[in-house]
Amino acid sequence: MTQTTHNYFNQYRGRTLNSLEHWLPKETTFPTRLHQAMRYSALNTGKCVRPTLVYATGKALGVPLEILDSPACAVELIHIYSLIHDDLPCMDDDDLRRGKLTCHIVYDEAVAILAGDALQALAYHILSHSNTLKISAEMRLKMLDNLTLACGSRGLVGGQDVDLNSVNKQLSITELEDMHIHKTGALIRASVMLASYCKESLDTKKAQQLDHYAKCIGLAFQIRDDILDFEGSTTILGKTSGKDSANSKATYTSILGISTAKEKANDLYHESIKSLQDFGEEADELRMIAQFIIERNH
Amino acid sequence: MTQTTHNYFNQYRGRTLNSLEHWLPKETTFPTRLHQAMRYSALNTGKCVRPTLVYATGKALGVPLEILDSPACAVELIHIYSLIHDDLPCMDDDDLRRGKLTCHIVYDEAVAILAGDALQALAYHILSHSNTLKISAEMRLKMLDNLTLACGSRGLVGGQDVDLNSVNKQLSITELEDMHIHKTGALIRASVMLASYCKESLDTKKAQQLDHYAKCIGLAFQIRDDILDFEGSTTILGKTSGKDSANSKATYTSILGISTAKEKANDLYHESIKSLQDFGEEADELRMIAQFIIERNH
Repeated sequence: MTQTTHNYFNQYRGRTLNSLEHWLPKETTFPTRLHQAMRYSALNTGKCVRPTLVYATGKALGVPLEILDSPACAVELIHIYSLIHDDLPCMDDDDLRRGKLTCHIVYDEAVAILAGDALQALAYHILSHSNTLKISAEMRLKMLDNLTLACGSRGLVGGQDVDLNSVNKQLSITELEDMHIHKTGALIRASVMLASYCKESLDTKKAQQLDHYAKCIGLAFQIRDDILDFEGSTTILGKTSGKDSANSKATYTSILGISTAKEKANDLYHESIKSLQDFGEEADELRMIAQFIIERNH
Repeated sequence: MTQTTHNYFNQYRGRTLNSLEHWLPKETTFPTRLHQAMRYSALNTGKCVRPTLVYATGKALGVPLEILDSPACAVELIHIYSLIHDDLPCMDDDDLRRGKLTCHIVYDEAVAILAGDALQALAYHILSHSNTLKISAEMRLKMLDNLTLACGSRGLVGGQDVDLNSVNKQLSITELEDMHIHKTGALIRASVMLASYCKESLDTKKAQQLDHYAKCIGLAFQIRDDILDFEGSTTILGKTSGKDSANSKATYTSILGISTAKEKANDLYHESIKSLQDFGEEADELRMIAQFIIERNH
């Protein structure tokens, strides 16, 4: 990641952390153990790719940053909750997340499940709570409609179920893609859509172009993840690498081979850029995020 | 339960089942295993006390039944999701629920966690999805605001955390009450509040009276649960009884003794009835529910 990209992500990461601090109950608020667990996982943020997508999409549409804070924080909270549950022993059984011990290791499984449950509720609470958004009630309901669908059994949660069910199974490239469209893609797409709802009377064509951009980078993100898992080391990733192949999980690299996987990621990158052709330099941040996604090393 | 009360609950239970059928994805919808698990737990309904409270409150306010279907279904889905997670081995470790094997026994722990996660998202989705409610967007946001708060770390989820943390601990009656106000009370209160939001321009005094009614019956419900657990049998309850005392969990009966616990439940019943004094016979269903709650045998 270049210094410019690094600074770019850091700016929105800081903004997201401020929102998280604002919305998460304090460590001293009863029940303290639960709130400590929620904060432990939530404030151990990564690059905040999803909130950054919210902000960058908003920027491409001329939406003021402060209107984007709530959806940005909401999508990050959903991402955090899903990681806490995914890391559980009965799911991916991960002890490390972003270089730190996972929630169920530091606390216990029950607290980790409850922390995830409460973070999911908090994400929607932020969007529904009065006075947090300077946009119409109708648009806020549209955001909630979109996000709750993306996070349900035909979105993120469904994708995780298929993922768990695919261990030791041969998947076709279509099945693998379908899994990732749900598991990773749904929330990335929702991040872009939520920001687009902040622009009242956005024309349908532009909304579709942004959605297509999101679909492309969502898939590219997962392919890059598989490439990193194949090539990477635990130190850089901050999580146990090579884990997917060790678990006999189907990956893009195992099905397509490393070079075809890289080509596919590259094709998706170009398609994502093409889908922004009607946008001017106001969409440069979205272009930079697409580039980061296929070039990132962690 | 008298035949009249039985028929009364059955009518709204049927209505709730219809809504659940409408909103739950089919068993054949991909990912099928997850949808089967969601349906297995969701359609094994009990008496549907929470949806019934939504309908009865709406009736007390003259709200048409069809407007109440969405909030009624949403609160039941939240209740179901919380039971699936509470039954997990790392939480209450229950094998039986309403006379049937629990979700994690029939499927596995991962599926049970995911089914709960997806049901939570679905509950909010129903409230936010367009064209489901004939009330204003502002009121729908208020419902979501209230329900997401009631289901978060300072509501239902927080109460479960305190409950798990209280095993082998001496609790004062205030601490026990505080736990139940969150664990059981928050969703019961939300059920009544959601229905009251369906009545546009409801006067504040009546809203407060209904809320006080809900607080009283929420606590009475839990005390009755403890009394049943103390006295009951597994056959009638459809779950393992005497479990709370076996787990050294604080209960109303263990702290207050059985006769004081019964007195307290009775006092709360009378207080709930008193809080409805400004309502006429249109609130008779709410009165009947209060009576059922302190007299029920299962």
